[in-house]
Amino acid sequence: MKYLRFSYQGSEKAGILEDGVIKEVEGSFFDVYEFTGKIYHTDEVKLLAPCSPSKVVAVGLNYVEHIKEFDGRDIPKNPVLFIKLPHTVIGSEDTIIIPQEATRVDYEAELAVVIKKTCKNIEPDQIDEYLLGATCLNDVTERDIQRSDGQWTRGKNFETFCPIGPYIVSGIDYNKLDIKLVLNGEVKQDSNTSDLLWNVQQLVSFISKTIPLYPGDIVTTGTPSGVSAMKAGDIVEVVIENIGTLRNTVSSDGLL
Amino acid sequence: MKYLRFSYQGSEKAGILEDGVIKEVEGSFFDVYEFTGKIYHTDEVKLLAPCSPSKVVAVGLNYVEHIKEFDGRDIPKNPVLFIKLPHTVIGSEDTIIIPQEATRVDYEAELAVVIKKTCKNIEPDQIDEYLLGATCLNDVTERDIQRSDGQWTRGKNFETFCPIGPYIVSGIDYNKLDIKLVLNGEVKQDSNTSDLLWNVQQLVSFISKTIPLYPGDIVTTGTPSGVSAMKAGDIVEVVIENIGTLRNTVSSDGLL
Repeated sequence: MKYLRFSYQGSEKAGILEDGVIKEVEGSFFDVYEFTGKIYHTDEVKLLAPCSPSKVVAVGLNYVEHIKEFDGRDIPKNPVLFIKLPHTVIGSEDTIIIPQEATRVDYEAELAVVIKKTCKNIEPDQIDEYLLGATCLNDVTERDIQRSDGQWTRGKNFETFCPIGPYIVSGIDYNKLDIKLVLNGEVKQDSNTSDLLWNVQQLVSFISKTIPLYPGDIVTTGTPSGVSAMKAGDIVEVVIENIGTLRNTVSSDGLL
Repeated sequence: MKYLRFSYQGSEKAGILEDGVIKEVEGSFFDVYEFTGKIYHTDEVKLLAPCSPSKVVAVGLNYVEHIKEFDGRDIPKNPVLFIKLPHTVIGSEDTIIIPQEATRVDYEAELAVVIKKTCKNIEPDQIDEYLLGATCLNDVTERDIQRSDGQWTRGKNFETFCPIGPYIVSGIDYNKLDIKLVLNGEVKQDSNTSDLLWNVQQLVSFISKTIPLYPGDIVTTGTPSGVSAMKAGDIVEVVIENIGTLRNTVSSDGLL
């Protein structure tokens, strides 16, 4: 199932992508919903972020090759968590804005999962019933601020720094998905989620033992190696097998 | 003005403490409110956390003496930010729960301020109109996890790790307040907010340039030196001049 949200003639709607068209639904993906019978073509709507998380719980340093390129530290003994707040979230085709004080803003292609029901203190083998599905996420990062602050909060939390989408896809194996980052048509990151140090089930379980996760919240799984900077005018795509392409343009603050 | 929230016979209410009694109000402290005419005595109600932040933006290492006791690093060139999420918030007289996996849970007495209206990209001299007032905050921290994770998210975000209250107090000078932590009657931290490296105005301005702050959100200003561990059965108080006393008991997970 491919869950999405979109706007049509100024109003926000939810839908399911099936047979190449969007079938409108009323209700909530996290509870009950029903089809309205209305159909939209993908080229007549604007996609929105497919959910509105109260927080994105993110994991740093979850692919060995990215740890090497970041600072070569030892593999962490636990997942290293940080938070991206709701104001950072944008949808596919929205614009990533480079803030004025930025000196280096990087893309980070990530597989993200969306929580379906409240999740506290859950074991890895229980996780599937708590997840609605998976989506693409670009963990946009001001790399110089991330490094100089030490704590990653500020470098990860400028507005527009968390594109997600285009859909939330259920019924796939999260642990065997090709993941790519394509910058202006050139492949920059190219990995598979089987290379994750901690997989989706382990991460969601680990996080749920400290931080309760609510419907619509996102857990994102970290980025593979190949990170580098973006500049105004770039087109950046996160492409994940069986999910789709999250595509954003890049602009500088003041140039929108 | 002393703004508070309380429960009385099972229903949640808002009020203002004046002349030693609680005058009930309807509406929102962040918008408009009016007195209902009902009066409650402080000993017949249970105080609640005085607001429901969408996030607490916290600042580490904002008193020189605490930097020395933490790890002796150089004074940061910018405030070091981290997030405490809403599930951590409790009120005065509520119980701080030490999680099962904890090995060292510390108190941290802090002055916190509460946002009154949405605050984006504000200069320090504009801050006062964006603040409702100040309150006491205990930035409870699992110190061993904080250190071993490197990122402070997990060590700062167990449930009950953010007591706030008892009131939000307006009309005071945030930059000249005695602040104390009292553990089982013994003064453990004893400082004054004039010792802050970055004061309230500078912090809120700095944060607002990256992270939008919404009505009810909290900015907390860091802790002075003297941190140490708590154990089940302890009574911990944050006492701030002209604000009041935030008092909590400590319990172990499973003992409640």
